[in-house]
Amino acid sequence: MEHPFDRIIVALDPPIGAPKKIYERVAREACSRGSHVKVGIPYLLEYGIQGIAGLSKICKGPQMVVADFKMADIGFVMRSVASRLAGMVDAIIAHAFVGIEGGLRELKELLDASHVKLVLVVSMSHKGSQEVMDKCLDRLIGVARELEPWGVVAPATRPESLLRVRRELEGVAILSPGVGLQGGQPGDAICLGADYEIIGRAVTRAKDPGRALDVIANQISEKCLQGLKPGKNPAI
Amino acid sequence: MEHPFDRIIVALDPPIGAPKKIYERVAREACSRGSHVKVGIPYLLEYGIQGIAGLSKICKGPQMVVADFKMADIGFVMRSVASRLAGMVDAIIAHAFVGIEGGLRELKELLDASHVKLVLVVSMSHKGSQEVMDKCLDRLIGVARELEPWGVVAPATRPESLLRVRRELEGVAILSPGVGLQGGQPGDAICLGADYEIIGRAVTRAKDPGRALDVIANQISEKCLQGLKPGKNPAI
Repeated sequence: MEHPFDRIIVALDPPIGAPKKIYERVAREACSRGSHVKVGIPYLLEYGIQGIAGLSKICKGPQMVVADFKMADIGFVMRSVASRLAGMVDAIIAHAFVGIEGGLRELKELLDASHVKLVLVVSMSHKGSQEVMDKCLDRLIGVARELEPWGVVAPATRPESLLRVRRELEGVAILSPGVGLQGGQPGDAICLGADYEIIGRAVTRAKDPGRALDVIANQISEKCLQGLKPGKNPAI
Repeated sequence: MEHPFDRIIVALDPPIGAPKKIYERVAREACSRGSHVKVGIPYLLEYGIQGIAGLSKICKGPQMVVADFKMADIGFVMRSVASRLAGMVDAIIAHAFVGIEGGLRELKELLDASHVKLVLVVSMSHKGSQEVMDKCLDRLIGVARELEPWGVVAPATRPESLLRVRRELEGVAILSPGVGLQGGQPGDAICLGADYEIIGRAVTRAKDPGRALDVIANQISEKCLQGLKPGKNPAI
């Protein structure tokens, strides 16, 4: 049976005061199995940019460190952030809704030159995503189609959005949050065509994060990766 | 002549490697005149959370420190960030685009309890804002109307958006970026009904930031604050 660890991205979002070594241990458990990690502003606030640099030493080679600040600013500011992170992270997540001119294009050019992957959020896992973002999904997909990022974010919690993104953005990796405490089941998103499932608290707050990852990987494998060979999914 | 320093928010966005003392000096020049400061991810990457805490000692009393991470995440993550910043900053900027349920409502509740102002971005200063955001402006204004934040962000660079936001969101403070190197002239936004103009590089990269601020304050005053008494603007 294939163990799809490389389809799992562990979201490292520490609560206030959580010791760094706990989250570095989770990163070690994840990346030693072939999974990836993702950090956001909570990690940066807690451990500083040195904390992110530390992760890049734990997760090397094909294992990605994803900077998920969900950037949504003008090009000047996003370039400034990205140029600080280049060399420490493998991918950076920004919001498609910011638009291209004076925004995402400037970011994309810098990331391309730095060999860092761009990932654009086109839909989110929480209910509020339906209030504005999902109603503008055609435009958000349009931004992604024009800019050609390496990947997009679309949630496991609303299959119809995920299916539409999969259908309309061929060859683009899909990263799916919402698995675990947000309600999605492991494998839900990958069965629908996502390439990576983003799992946070179900791993980071487990008594034994490594064991939790093993269980989740098994669930994904049993649910929808039977017989799937690495590289069979065209988006990877 | 009134000197409208309290209508100016100085955006502190340091380039890589810029000494902290330079930006703290700018903050001192700004807040000693009655202006406010705003920091984003670049400041956090460069100087850490201690750097932001340092600003809260320089800018006290009515002078605001605004955390402009342009947050656009699920409620769980935004609450985590906000609870880390509460006590250090006076206002936090998030994107209306994220929606309320499971998103901005959770943030708003935490900020209300912490006596930190919420500011929602409804439009941006760069051209790309017209690609998606401005086309969804009615929905973004709707989110702001329902959530009742202290303030919103709307740009000086597109008067029609600013005028519409002013008309539709009574009693809400408007913070306007885009003045200075982004093309807007000092006073442009306040003349149209904004409450604060956000000015970055035109001050921070001036040879004498204090003098640059004096000149800008004069320009605003001459342009559209003649005879305006403090508090006359209903949004403040």
